[in-house]
Amino acid sequence: MRAVDIIIKKRDHQRLTEAEIDYFIQGYAAGEIPDYQAAAWAMAVLLNGMDAEETTHLIMAMARSGEILDLSQVVPLAVDKHSTGGVGDKTTLVVEPVVAACGLPVGKMSGRGLGFTGGTLDKMESIPGFRTNLEIDEFMAQLKDVGLVLAGQSKALAPADGKLYALRDVTGTVQSIPLIASSIMSKKIAAGAQAILLDVKVGLGAFMQTMEDARQLAELMVAVAGKAGRRAVALLSDMNQPLGEAVGNALEVKEAIDTLHGGGPADFREHCTVVAAHLLALGQVANNPGHGRQLVEQALSDDSAWEKFRQLVTAQGGDVSTVDDPSRLPAASLVEPLPSPHAGWIAQVHARLVGEAAVVLGAGRARLEDPIDHGVGILVHTKVGDHVEKGQPLFTIHAASQEKLDEARRSLLDTLLFSDEPVDPLPLFYGEISEA
Amino acid sequence: MRAVDIIIKKRDHQRLTEAEIDYFIQGYAAGEIPDYQAAAWAMAVLLNGMDAEETTHLIMAMARSGEILDLSQVVPLAVDKHSTGGVGDKTTLVVEPVVAACGLPVGKMSGRGLGFTGGTLDKMESIPGFRTNLEIDEFMAQLKDVGLVLAGQSKALAPADGKLYALRDVTGTVQSIPLIASSIMSKKIAAGAQAILLDVKVGLGAFMQTMEDARQLAELMVAVAGKAGRRAVALLSDMNQPLGEAVGNALEVKEAIDTLHGGGPADFREHCTVVAAHLLALGQVANNPGHGRQLVEQALSDDSAWEKFRQLVTAQGGDVSTVDDPSRLPAASLVEPLPSPHAGWIAQVHARLVGEAAVVLGAGRARLEDPIDHGVGILVHTKVGDHVEKGQPLFTIHAASQEKLDEARRSLLDTLLFSDEPVDPLPLFYGEISEA
Repeated sequence: MRAVDIIIKKRDHQRLTEAEIDYFIQGYAAGEIPDYQAAAWAMAVLLNGMDAEETTHLIMAMARSGEILDLSQVVPLAVDKHSTGGVGDKTTLVVEPVVAACGLPVGKMSGRGLGFTGGTLDKMESIPGFRTNLEIDEFMAQLKDVGLVLAGQSKALAPADGKLYALRDVTGTVQSIPLIASSIMSKKIAAGAQAILLDVKVGLGAFMQTMEDARQLAELMVAVAGKAGRRAVALLSDMNQPLGEAVGNALEVKEAIDTLHGGGPADFREHCTVVAAHLLALGQVANNPGHGRQLVEQALSDDSAWEKFRQLVTAQGGDVSTVDDPSRLPAASLVEPLPSPHAGWIAQVHARLVGEAAVVLGAGRARLEDPIDHGVGILVHTKVGDHVEKGQPLFTIHAASQEKLDEARRSLLDTLLFSDEPVDPLPLFYGEISEA
Repeated sequence: MRAVDIIIKKRDHQRLTEAEIDYFIQGYAAGEIPDYQAAAWAMAVLLNGMDAEETTHLIMAMARSGEILDLSQVVPLAVDKHSTGGVGDKTTLVVEPVVAACGLPVGKMSGRGLGFTGGTLDKMESIPGFRTNLEIDEFMAQLKDVGLVLAGQSKALAPADGKLYALRDVTGTVQSIPLIASSIMSKKIAAGAQAILLDVKVGLGAFMQTMEDARQLAELMVAVAGKAGRRAVALLSDMNQPLGEAVGNALEVKEAIDTLHGGGPADFREHCTVVAAHLLALGQVANNPGHGRQLVEQALSDDSAWEKFRQLVTAQGGDVSTVDDPSRLPAASLVEPLPSPHAGWIAQVHARLVGEAAVVLGAGRARLEDPIDHGVGILVHTKVGDHVEKGQPLFTIHAASQEKLDEARRSLLDTLLFSDEPVDPLPLFYGEISEA
C-alpha cells in the first residue's frame, strides 16, 4: 500500500476501504506519511467527500491512533456531550454539574478557544488554582469519587486528530464535514463515551453557517456513532446571536454560577435545561427528555447542581471562595455600558462579530499561543426581537484599557441591525436528530 | 497576503489573481511556503481547475522563479519544441538536426525518462562521451557556433517547477491540465523560446489518454503562449502504439541515425517530417508547413541533417565513430525474436505496456535514481492494421539476461490484440491547434 495511491483514489472520487484509511492515519500519526501527503489527502477529502462508512473508519482509525479509555470500571454508562462551539456558549459549566447532581457521572475532556469561539478550559481557568491538565488516572479517580471532571484533552487520546487538526488549520481544510465529524467523534470514542449528546450550532457565529451543513454534520455524526457501536443524539441549536448575556471567561463563569443558583438569562437557562434533559435520557437516568427536564429543574432549585459545581472546583484545586463570592473572580478595570444610538426592534446581534470583539478585548486568542485576559469581555443585553429605546444599554464592555474599550465600542455597534418593524425572536433549537 | 487564504480561495472555486499566484510560487520556491501548503493548493487546483489567465500567471511566476534566458544575442528567433512524451518517441534526435540543417538554430533543454516514457537525455547518453550537463554559457556558445544543442534542464531555470513537480509526483497531483501546461511552458519560456511547437501525444501510451484531455491541454498551452507574448502551435499525435520500431536508448539512436540517412520506419520518418516542417514554418525559415516539408526532405536526402547530427555529437564530446558505425553503440547480450502465436490482423499494440516491458528490461527507470542499461530494449515490428502470419516475428527483444528476456516475452504478448477481420491503421496526427 502506498500513501500516494490512497490520495489518488480519493482524488478520483472513489471510496476508501477501512484498511486504506487505517494505513493512512496510523502512518501519519507515526510520522511515516509526511504532512504534504496528508495535506493533499485532506483537500481531496474536503472537495470530494466521504460517506458515512468511510467517516466511521476514519473516526475509528483516529481513535486507535492512541489509548482508548475504558470507563466501565468507574461508571455504569459513560456519557459525554459536545458542542460544535459558539459565542457565549458556557453550557458545559451548567449542564455537567446538573446531570452529575442527578446521578449521571460525566467526565469531559475539553479544548481551548480559538478564534471567535470560547473554550471551556479557558473559562474554568478564570477560577484561581483550577487545574485542567489531569493525568488519565486522576481523571478516572475523580470521575469515580466526585462523578464530575472537566479536564483538558489528553495527548494520549487520538493523537492523529491533534496532528491532523493542526495541519488542516494551515492548509484550508478545516471546513470539511467528514473531517469535522471524525475530529469530534474520534476524541469522544477514545475518551470512552458510550452515549454522546451533540449540540450542533448553526448560524452566523457557528462553524456551520447553514441549516443544510449543520443537519448534514449532525446526521453524519449520529450515523457514524451507530456504526461504531455508540449511541448519539444531536440537537440543532441557534448560534446567530450569542447564547446568554456573557461573552468572556470570568463573565461567563459568573453567568453559569447565577444559573446554577436558579437564575441566569432565560435563553441560556432554557438551553441548558434542554441539553441536560436529553443527556439524562441518553444516560438512562431519565425515562425520556420530559422526565429529564423535571430532574434538571429540581437540581437547579434545590442547590444540588450548585453543590456539585463546588465539588468540581475543589477537586481540581480551584479556590472555591471565588465561586462562592464571584466578585473575587478576575475582573476588568474599565466597565462601560454602550447605549443604543436610536430606538427600534433588534433584527440581528451578529454572534461572530460579537465573538471577534471579545477576542480584540483579550478574552480569546487569534493563535493558540496567545495569552488570555480572563477578566475582560462583553455583556450582551439585547436579543433579536427585543424593542430598545434610544440610550438604553445594548452592551456592557469590560476592558483592560481605554483603547481596547473604544475599539470594542465601534465594532459592537456593527454587530447590530435595527428594524422599524417588529421582528420575531430566534428559536433556541431547530431540531433533534437521533438514529432511525 | 497569507498562503492559507490563497489555498482557501482556490478550494472555493475562485479565480486567483496574478499577485496571489506570484506570492505563492515565489514563496514556495524560496522555501517560505512549506510543502504541505503547496500540496493542498495543488490538489485544489487539480480538482477545481484554473482558467487560461490564471495558468498564464502561473507559467510566468514559475519562469520568474529563476533566470530567464535571452537568446536574441545568438539567434534571430528562438524556437523550441516539446513532446508530452511517449513510447519510442525519439523525434527530437531527428527533427532538431533537420531544422538546424535548414538554417533554423535550435537549443533544447530536455528531461530524463521516468516510468514508461523515454527521455531524450538518456537516449543521447547511449553515445559514449556525450555530455548533457552544459553550463548556460556553454549552451549559448554552442547554439551560436553549431546552431544545435541538446542539453539537460538547467537548475537555474524555473526552479519552482522542479520543486513543485517533485511534490506533485508524491501527492497525486500530476494529472492536472493547468499544472502540466505550466510545468511545460514555464521551462520553455525561461529557456528563451519565442516560438514553440508542441507535440501533444494522445492515447494508451501518453499522459493524455483521451482526445478531450489532449485537446484541452493543447488549446490551453497555445492560448497561454499567446498571453505570454509567445507564439505556439500544437500538433495532436497518436500514442496508442509505439512510434517507429525502436524502444530503448541505443536502439532508438540507431533508428534516428537510419532516419537521418534517409531511411527509418515509415511512420517515424513521416512524423519527424511533419514536426520539422511545422517548426520551420514557426521559425520563419519556411513560408508554411508545405514549404517546410520540401526543405526537410532535402535535408534528409542530401545528408546535411546527418552532418548536423555529427556536429552535435562532436560538440558535446560524444564519440562520433559510434554514430558513424552504430554497431559500436551499446548493445544487449541476448537478442531474440518473438514470433506470432497465430495469424490475424493487429488491432492493438498497447504503447504503455510496451514501454513498461522496456523498463523491466532496464531501458527505463521506475524512480529517478535508478540506473539505465542503454543497450537493452525492444524492436516493434508490427503496427495496428498489419496482417501477420503465425510464426512471423512481432518483436525483437534485446535483453541483458535470460530471466529478463523471458519476462519481456510474456509481457509483450499481452500488449497485442488480434482480430479476425481487417483493422484500419491508426493515423499519425489527429489535428493541429494554433492561435485563433
